[in-house]
Amino acid sequence: MKKVVLAFSGGLDTSFCVKYLLEQGYEIYSAIVNTGGFSEEELAEIARRAENLGVAQHVTLDETDNYYQSCLKYLIFGNVLKNNTYPLSVSAERISQAVAIAKYAQQIGAEAVAHGSTGAGNDQVRFDMVFNILVPNVEIITPIRDLKLSREEEIAYLKERGVEMDFQKAQYSINKGIWGTSVGGKETLTSHQALPESAYPTQLTKETPERITLHFKNGEPVGLNDEMFDNPVHVIQKLQEIAGAFAIGRDIHVGDTIIGIKGRVGFEAAAPMVIIKAHHALEKHTLTKWQLYWKDSLATWYGNWMHEGQFLDPTMRNIETFLTDTQKTVTGKVHVWLAPYRFQVEGIESEHDLMSSKFGSYGEMNNAWSGEDVKGFSKIFGNQTMMYRLINGEDGAE
Amino acid sequence: MKKVVLAFSGGLDTSFCVKYLLEQGYEIYSAIVNTGGFSEEELAEIARRAENLGVAQHVTLDETDNYYQSCLKYLIFGNVLKNNTYPLSVSAERISQAVAIAKYAQQIGAEAVAHGSTGAGNDQVRFDMVFNILVPNVEIITPIRDLKLSREEEIAYLKERGVEMDFQKAQYSINKGIWGTSVGGKETLTSHQALPESAYPTQLTKETPERITLHFKNGEPVGLNDEMFDNPVHVIQKLQEIAGAFAIGRDIHVGDTIIGIKGRVGFEAAAPMVIIKAHHALEKHTLTKWQLYWKDSLATWYGNWMHEGQFLDPTMRNIETFLTDTQKTVTGKVHVWLAPYRFQVEGIESEHDLMSSKFGSYGEMNNAWSGEDVKGFSKIFGNQTMMYRLINGEDGAE
Amino acid sequence: MKKVVLAFSGGLDTSFCVKYLLEQGYEIYSAIVNTGGFSEEELAEIARRAENLGVAQHVTLDETDNYYQSCLKYLIFGNVLKNNTYPLSVSAERISQAVAIAKYAQQIGAEAVAHGSTGAGNDQVRFDMVFNILVPNVEIITPIRDLKLSREEEIAYLKERGVEMDFQKAQYSINKGIWGTSVGGKETLTSHQALPESAYPTQLTKETPERITLHFKNGEPVGLNDEMFDNPVHVIQKLQEIAGAFAIGRDIHVGDTIIGIKGRVGFEAAAPMVIIKAHHALEKHTLTKWQLYWKDSLATWYGNWMHEGQFLDPTMRNIETFLTDTQKTVTGKVHVWLAPYRFQVEGIESEHDLMSSKFGSYGEMNNAWSGEDVKGFSKIFGNQTMMYRLINGEDGAE
Amino acid sequence: MKKVVLAFSGGLDTSFCVKYLLEQGYEIYSAIVNTGGFSEEELAEIARRAENLGVAQHVTLDETDNYYQSCLKYLIFGNVLKNNTYPLSVSAERISQAVAIAKYAQQIGAEAVAHGSTGAGNDQVRFDMVFNILVPNVEIITPIRDLKLSREEEIAYLKERGVEMDFQKAQYSINKGIWGTSVGGKETLTSHQALPESAYPTQLTKETPERITLHFKNGEPVGLNDEMFDNPVHVIQKLQEIAGAFAIGRDIHVGDTIIGIKGRVGFEAAAPMVIIKAHHALEKHTLTKWQLYWKDSLATWYGNWMHEGQFLDPTMRNIETFLTDTQKTVTGKVHVWLAPYRFQVEGIESEHDLMSSKFGSYGEMNNAWSGEDVKGFSKIFGNQTMMYRLINGEDGAE
Repeated sequence: MKKVVLAFSGGLDTSFCVKYLLEQGYEIYSAIVNTGGFSEEELAEIARRAENLGVAQHVTLDETDNYYQSCLKYLIFGNVLKNNTYPLSVSAERISQAVAIAKYAQQIGAEAVAHGSTGAGNDQVRFDMVFNILVPNVEIITPIRDLKLSREEEIAYLKERGVEMDFQKAQYSINKGIWGTSVGGKETLTSHQALPESAYPTQLTKETPERITLHFKNGEPVGLNDEMFDNPVHVIQKLQEIAGAFAIGRDIHVGDTIIGIKGRVGFEAAAPMVIIKAHHALEKHTLTKWQLYWKDSLATWYGNWMHEGQFLDPTMRNIETFLTDTQKTVTGKVHVWLAPYRFQVEGIESEHDLMSSKFGSYGEMNNAWSGEDVKGFSKIFGNQTMMYRLINGEDGAE
Repeated sequence: MKKVVLAFSGGLDTSFCVKYLLEQGYEIYSAIVNTGGFSEEELAEIARRAENLGVAQHVTLDETDNYYQSCLKYLIFGNVLKNNTYPLSVSAERISQAVAIAKYAQQIGAEAVAHGSTGAGNDQVRFDMVFNILVPNVEIITPIRDLKLSREEEIAYLKERGVEMDFQKAQYSINKGIWGTSVGGKETLTSHQALPESAYPTQLTKETPERITLHFKNGEPVGLNDEMFDNPVHVIQKLQEIAGAFAIGRDIHVGDTIIGIKGRVGFEAAAPMVIIKAHHALEKHTLTKWQLYWKDSLATWYGNWMHEGQFLDPTMRNIETFLTDTQKTVTGKVHVWLAPYRFQVEGIESEHDLMSSKFGSYGEMNNAWSGEDVKGFSKIFGNQTMMYRLINGEDGAE
Repeated sequence: MKKVVLAFSGGLDTSFCVKYLLEQGYEIYSAIVNTGGFSEEELAEIARRAENLGVAQHVTLDETDNYYQSCLKYLIFGNVLKNNTYPLSVSAERISQAVAIAKYAQQIGAEAVAHGSTGAGNDQVRFDMVFNILVPNVEIITPIRDLKLSREEEIAYLKERGVEMDFQKAQYSINKGIWGTSVGGKETLTSHQALPESAYPTQLTKETPERITLHFKNGEPVGLNDEMFDNPVHVIQKLQEIAGAFAIGRDIHVGDTIIGIKGRVGFEAAAPMVIIKAHHALEKHTLTKWQLYWKDSLATWYGNWMHEGQFLDPTMRNIETFLTDTQKTVTGKVHVWLAPYRFQVEGIESEHDLMSSKFGSYGEMNNAWSGEDVKGFSKIFGNQTMMYRLINGEDGAE
Repeated sequence: MKKVVLAFSGGLDTSFCVKYLLEQGYEIYSAIVNTGGFSEEELAEIARRAENLGVAQHVTLDETDNYYQSCLKYLIFGNVLKNNTYPLSVSAERISQAVAIAKYAQQIGAEAVAHGSTGAGNDQVRFDMVFNILVPNVEIITPIRDLKLSREEEIAYLKERGVEMDFQKAQYSINKGIWGTSVGGKETLTSHQALPESAYPTQLTKETPERITLHFKNGEPVGLNDEMFDNPVHVIQKLQEIAGAFAIGRDIHVGDTIIGIKGRVGFEAAAPMVIIKAHHALEKHTLTKWQLYWKDSLATWYGNWMHEGQFLDPTMRNIETFLTDTQKTVTGKVHVWLAPYRFQVEGIESEHDLMSSKFGSYGEMNNAWSGEDVKGFSKIFGNQTMMYRLINGEDGAE
């Protein structure tokens, strides 16, 4: 029997895939990749389902730390928000999952990998591409995309085969991960409607504003308030608990899918938004003008390219090296004020703060240079434009 | 007597300049440039002060419409927020003012222009550069920068000459304009403190959330709710009234001054923030992926270069042409929900919306292409990275 | 009978397509698009072949002027050389041809379009994409790609059907156009071999170096030596005659095909290389530093995106607007020295030359600013780095 | 007596500086920085002159290896040619020299540093900035710039003080370095004239074309023909001997000086041009499309910023890290054909060559994907533009 590794989530589509692949004569190795979005209980429940459906073996691949190290870290370094909005919650996670699945398939010598993506979203491309790149000789099977079954047809197929599960469709499709939770459905299928309060999985449970302090070391979050952590993942999780209760970091993003259509999705991402804005504030104090400029240019492209599933392009490694190199001085504390639905970065403290009082502060008189120096600077700095106008006239050219 | 045009604001520094330049034997033509930040009463009061101090003539140069047409329009087209934070409230305004002063000086045949900038901020460079470029043969006089007097010395100088004015130093230095109000002082001179609620000139006066609709035509704001306006300036002003009451658009920015030090400033900019985010949302629906990418790259640089006083570089005109050309489809309505201290862009409606249901929506099955097409796409799209890895091994190179 | 428009070149592949499509029951409208690479005789010969093969109708679509106006003009404005090497001779032409074919198909109400591309090159993607975009409801037929026939099989097929033509394979595959001629085969299929002298269609026929003068108006070539032309196409053709005789503009390019593999091709492009280098020299004298910088950035991407067949993306129109706007001062004469196999841009003359002696020349003392001004400039210009090092130590950070 | 370190070249200007500073009461430590442009004899002669003029001590600082390691290496990695023309021969060297002078001044505890730059060129800014940044408390003295003496006045001053030297002005000002020799004067002061053959220091001495092979390891030149070198500097020097004899690498560059005027300079740079073009060819075979794109973007800015004396900005270190990381696969041989006044990169050999025959070559049928895959790719790749046109009409918008 041919071994197939199936990326299994426990939902309708991948449950269908199990039954379908069994009938196609495959020996199924189901795998769920945890990138920090699942609890122990959820993982156990998913394993139970897989086994009940008849897989040969089910494994949970815990990729949380690896996901942070190979991916999230750079999203923080780059302050990556797609189109200035979306922390790439799902995009980054899906790639990390695909890589783990591919490696597992390679490890157990599978002849095929299967995923339950439909034919209209981003995930199919991410899975396909990562598999094509990492395990080019392994066949890719996508029953949902190929068969184009309706939800009802899938349910009927499963019921016929005696599968019992909750076939009730959730009103919103939720994807929960350590770097944010996406919420799709109903309003997000229109261009003009916002999600109702109730659609967000994390509801407001704290009303009294709170001050927190985030500690960064070379760009990585390493502490929260008075506690320092060995593993930045724990800072993210701890912060999510605190900031999530304020229902912070909600928004709707409309963006370009890899296949060219526009896609709209709601999300909540309390910890990611607070960390990115805090990290950015620290950088604005500790990096030079052009470091900020080039980081921004490279990170924008990096985020877009990751979104499109191109994480494995070696250019991405080169950019990560660049980003890492810029973080040498990004060490210090950031004070953040949290309130219901919003937060404010209040300020930073860092030994590397370039806003040093040694050099005379903005708006006050300084010591290291004179008004004459600035006069000269202004003259030379505008020299070429002055000449351009003298030669070409007021409008730049006759 | 030599004619000097003095950029006059009515404050301590420029009042000192009047008396000082009079004693240097100049005939003073004071001018205040209104870019939308002053009321009629404030302008009349400033004129009175100038005349009492002894200027030969005082004029108010109303540049509001011109400021919008030559500058703000492009900040909207480009969704310009310096370092993803600051709408360039003061930066853009100062240049517009300098240009108006230079043209006025040219018009009345002045031999000198004077401004009251100190030697540590951005404004000195902006004024100097614009004057050097537009009126290179006119002398620039900067008494405050040159004499390095303390506040107390300036006051003593004015008192000796019988000047009566309110010498009480305001706790915060405020610069109010149509594109936002900056607030500097005390906490902004540190790196770690936020401004207190009371420091913001516009206080919260509305508690009940409100929905508004902004209308854009070719990227310009042309209507608010059911009212359409001939002049986008009026949309901005009207929106400011409504959104300002919610104390929306407050933040603190730390950025690079033109002279290399870091500068920190608080600001409130309700209308600018709402307009930029609404405009950006409309663009995300109506522009292609690469239009968004290149707009963002060019606009980031455009904002930085304007901030540095380089507005007159012909490159800026070229970028404005680019930005204008991208706005052909940026027409439609944007729905925004306003609440105390925050707002949410809820959605858009546009004939140019690329998120058309005609093409199959994100996450659902589509009609214009098949799953096979996407499979082929994924294979080819990842082709080069696949080959790179086969040739170079897992880490990209041995 | 279903109407099909076939892009017909008269070669083996498209001759096969005629016979094959006839047998599939199509009524064939063959079309050859001339973008300046064919003589009247060649076009007549191709028409004869089409008719002999049995097409219902054959047309020659003359796109030379349109090709210049919609495409080549911008390659000149942008000094576009892919990877600093290749003037995109074939890439640009193929798109122009595809657009003309699509419009012709639309005009005559064809139900299908056919092209003779194989499955391994760039052209298939360019044709497919332009057709998908411009005539999305018209079927695309690609017999050569679909049937994967060998050269021998195609010949046998044609011979069986009584077709008489020169079936001798040329040693090199040549694509001649107004913007350069590509030469592929044998050596270009390796990574290490250069093309022999004899492989180039245009041989050296002039030995004595010659000086020419090119005239540009707003970036477009409008004159050669003492003759001014209404149509820049004629300048290109005239210059090609002169410079081609010197065997100028030969090189080998290796680049990324759209489908991810590397492709290597020889080319000769005398007029394009001379025009681009001359135009660039004129720009270096007449544009500001940042105009040059941004032109270069945008044009590099523009060339890459055109190469990939994405000419119809509206971003391309936005960039063309930018490039056009920069050309307002790019007017003047450029002196070029031609010699066997090489040329040298000797200098320029322009009213817009920013290297004006009015402002003190490079290396000599100037008049518009002083040494003190430069001292001040140097101090302020290096301010931030000075502070960065004082704060962070010699290596940027401890 | 106050110690001053004088950057001494042995020419008129710096000879004047010695006498002048002596009379100002300074104890002079003259230093010449060799970055590979001087022979032992030349250095000895310069030392003799310094001592004759009365310096307290003269030193030769040999920076050649350090110059390569800290600077030239990255110009190779980045294929840096300013405005696609000039290998930054002088720009890079001057900064390396300024850094060495600053460190020497620090080491001997000098209170001042002096350089002989005039007030109109780039070098003054480079020296000033490096000194301001590295030794901010050391005074900078620039007698030539400050006194604005004519050549004749300097000669008279020296003659009065008994100095005997060759006061004959050379027709061209030559700056010879390992990364190229600049030639300025007469024709380069105009916009329209080329330098005569005789102006170039290295004359054509070889007529018979020659094939050479350059070896690169991780982007660095490590061998020439059959000889491998420990030190890339020796490859450059050896190649210069061979290629220089063909008078290769001559051109005229006009560019933007740091102070805003345009500057024009001739140069000859045989080894740099051959190395850069060879290195680039190797990269085009071994790097991915986007690695090439981003390398080019960053390197262009890197070269510009180095040209402007901003070598010490930490952004430059970040970019160097990026560039270095891209070079992991840039290992292999490049074959170059040298002929009088020109050369041709003929091809490359590398284990990392992505133009592998394994994947089906360009223009031939491939094995790793099918025509159907490409069809699907083309459809999806053009999807968004297809939709944009359906929605917005032919011109992108009504």
